Amino acid sequence: MGEFDVIRHFFQRPPRRKDVVTGSGDDCALLRVPADALLAVSTDTLVSGIHFFADMDPVRLGHKALAVNLSDLAAMGAEPRWVSLALTLPQIDEAWLAGFAQGFLELADFFHVDLIGGDMTRGPLSITVSIKGVVPEQGAMHRNGAKPGDAIWVTGELGGAALALQHQFGQVMLPSEALPSLLERLEQPTPRVVAGMALRGVASSGLDLSDGLASDLGHILRASGVGAQIELDRLPLPQALLAQPDALRWQLALAGGDDYELCFTVPEAQRGVLATALANAGVNISEIGRIVAGAPQIEWLYRGEPVSLVLNGWDHFKEST
Amino acid sequence: MGEFDVIRHFFQRPPRRKDVVTGSGDDCALLRVPADALLAVSTDTLVSGIHFFADMDPVRLGHKALAVNLSDLAAMGAEPRWVSLALTLPQIDEAWLAGFAQGFLELADFFHVDLIGGDMTRGPLSITVSIKGVVPEQGAMHRNGAKPGDAIWVTGELGGAALALQHQFGQVMLPSEALPSLLERLEQPTPRVVAGMALRGVASSGLDLSDGLASDLGHILRASGVGAQIELDRLPLPQALLAQPDALRWQLALAGGDDYELCFTVPEAQRGVLATALANAGVNISEIGRIVAGAPQIEWLYRGEPVSLVLNGWDHFKEST
Repeated sequence: MGEFDVIRHFFQRPPRRKDVVTGSGDDCALLRVPADALLAVSTDTLVSGIHFFADMDPVRLGHKALAVNLSDLAAMGAEPRWVSLALTLPQIDEAWLAGFAQGFLELADFFHVDLIGGDMTRGPLSITVSIKGVVPEQGAMHRNGAKPGDAIWVTGELGGAALALQHQFGQVMLPSEALPSLLERLEQPTPRVVAGMALRGVASSGLDLSDGLASDLGHILRASGVGAQIELDRLPLPQALLAQPDALRWQLALAGGDDYELCFTVPEAQRGVLATALANAGVNISEIGRIVAGAPQIEWLYRGEPVSLVLNGWDHFKEST
Repeated sequence: MGEFDVIRHFFQRPPRRKDVVTGSGDDCALLRVPADALLAVSTDTLVSGIHFFADMDPVRLGHKALAVNLSDLAAMGAEPRWVSLALTLPQIDEAWLAGFAQGFLELADFFHVDLIGGDMTRGPLSITVSIKGVVPEQGAMHRNGAKPGDAIWVTGELGGAALALQHQFGQVMLPSEALPSLLERLEQPTPRVVAGMALRGVASSGLDLSDGLASDLGHILRASGVGAQIELDRLPLPQALLAQPDALRWQLALAGGDDYELCFTVPEAQRGVLATALANAGVNISEIGRIVAGAPQIEWLYRGEPVSLVLNGWDHFKEST
């Protein structure tokens, strides 16, 4: 097989979506966007040695590369439809490519997303995924809509992926029965696409948690011009994280990153419809605090009392939209 | 300046286009696509050491990264509107970033394209650009529409960029007066966006030349199920390339790559409108051959007689859509 054929073999398939007028195999993909919706676009790069270990299972890596990108669409309540994949590889490794394609395309199929093109180049291993979806203009969930009095919610659990990473670094020792589900949180996160779409018209603001609640909630606070109180004892944490010492627990839960859960705010008037809206989203939600008037800062509360936390930042100059 | 601030400083600007509902600074960009057009999407990656020299002038690199991507839209006759930029950098170098942003944004502004987001990560230098534009469904220029009897045309000149690269490699010595324009062909190609849009409804097929005419025309021939005759003595070549020995001249003109000119086919019925359609496209066009019935192969002619050429391929497993 020539190199072009290898790539075609693993990634090129006839379009499945009827709104793909021209798929891969021409200079561009041509797509039909519904007239009553906005196009939502987000791009993420994962670099070997920075965002994942070079020897990470390619099936899981393929899943994760798409999942973190889908999470950005979920954060705005958009419905994913099409994705471009730019893959830079040091060499053609057919087994690796087969695994990566499997993980990537299985998740794409699950959400009815068509791979509509991209680029393959030789170079140090890195993956850039650009997802495209649609969202009704009035339904999109922005960062700037939070108001004092709104409740703050998150989907799923926080800190599990960061705890698994600490285990991989040899910094903590986890019980073997806890490890598989935490590793899955790290390597195969479930993007909250269905929850995001269900929150259209319910949440006043929202985003996805990639760097950790402390940093990411700050984006909502600054964009909305409000402050927040977070009740640490209401954070949804995996059992194995609850078992860790205080400092490590809060560090991983609030600044560990890689959660890919949604954080969103809900006005009191919408509280009643929230549970119904998310009944079929396939994920639990937890109320963890409230928006308050004031400077864009987070006040941490424990059993109702303010506490001060020292959290170490995490910045590989990632700035993603 | 913190790292986030650096990035914002160089790349983040308020949206200029009215169809950018939400620009960078949220989880996704939200864009308004006209109801009567298709969305055209293309993605390209440039890797340091593969597609460009690591010490390439950043202004020119910023220009080229966007230009090669715009060229894919031009190849389908699409109008560019929005672009995402994923930049992976070994370190924050403010002078380099300022130069890159300048080259990238000046070209974007020239074509009224808004930078609507992307990603910045640490890692080996590479650049992934994903351009988005619009094209009327009936006007898009595909690869599969060529018919026997159609004339084959190209914009601009062929082989100039490849000749400049040979000079940089020390393989040829060019006269100093020829060098600037050839280097500009290599490092600051002009994407044929206006020509591509003008060819809507005129060309029966088309694409842009990135790997060289011999390879790229093959895509049209296979997609259309036809053959071609190319008259070597009608190829538009820069003076400095005409001065090279035969074998090198044809190698660079036909398989050198990096031309970013359009190659397109025109039915006889459209011949009369071609000159008028392209009058304001800012580039000359040359008729170089014709489509013939038969297997998807190119017959090379010189002064009307068939000649055989041996061309060396160029494949860094690039497969781009």
